[in-house]
Amino acid sequence: MAKIIKLNHVAIAIGDVNSALNFWQDALGLSVDHIEDVPSQKSEVVFMPVGETEVELVHPTSEDSGLARFVTEKGGGLHHLCFEVDDIDEMLDTLKEKGIRMIDEHAKELPGRKMAFIHPKSTGGVLVELYQIIK
Amino acid sequence: MAKIIKLNHVAIAIGDVNSALNFWQDALGLSVDHIEDVPSQKSEVVFMPVGETEVELVHPTSEDSGLARFVTEKGGGLHHLCFEVDDIDEMLDTLKEKGIRMIDEHAKELPGRKMAFIHPKSTGGVLVELYQIIK
Repeated sequence: MAKIIKLNHVAIAIGDVNSALNFWQDALGLSVDHIEDVPSQKSEVVFMPVGETEVELVHPTSEDSGLARFVTEKGGGLHHLCFEVDDIDEMLDTLKEKGIRMIDEHAKELPGRKMAFIHPKSTGGVLVELYQIIK
Repeated sequence: MAKIIKLNHVAIAIGDVNSALNFWQDALGLSVDHIEDVPSQKSEVVFMPVGETEVELVHPTSEDSGLARFVTEKGGGLHHLCFEVDDIDEMLDTLKEKGIRMIDEHAKELPGRKMAFIHPKSTGGVLVELYQIIK
């Protein structure tokens, strides 16, 4: 059976990169590994490693995304959790068998990883992403 | 200067323990370490280790808490992040010097740890808890 390996990242939606860095980097002291434009997610992402996981500050770069609507409505905040799994296809089969509603019925393949989102309706209101890292 | 060591836990507010376990334990496959009544937080907590961090499912046991209002208003969802810091008193001094608004101006001492919450107004909408583990 497919297994969760670790928490890959916690994504925090932000309306403005500089004011987010004022808190997370300058006050709290987290280190920025890099900042990257991620067109597939219509966002700019600040990657901040914390131990074996990461805080990702995610800033929408388009107005037509769930992330952009989240920032418009709430101003920002905790957006999703991403767990690494050893076999994402098997995990998706298990979740669907158990009646869990998926945003992505099948894993999307991206360079270095496969990913899928689980619908918050099936998780008690938490947007959950799954990653399988492809070496 | 005080440093963040790791993400201690991600807290998820839940309205019902059994239906939360249906997803997090039975479908996603996370393991329950233990379930504990935490009177100081007016909650019952399901501790689920994931790598070096934990997912904590937090169920309010009283109606007069921020957590209870969160569950009543939103039904549940991502509630807060808790980071472990090597020196919480020094960290609180730094945060206050930088104008960060605290929920707890001074760390509370509990068995095995000192803790304080940062106000979401200063973090871009994220409730952030700090822990210093006392050995």
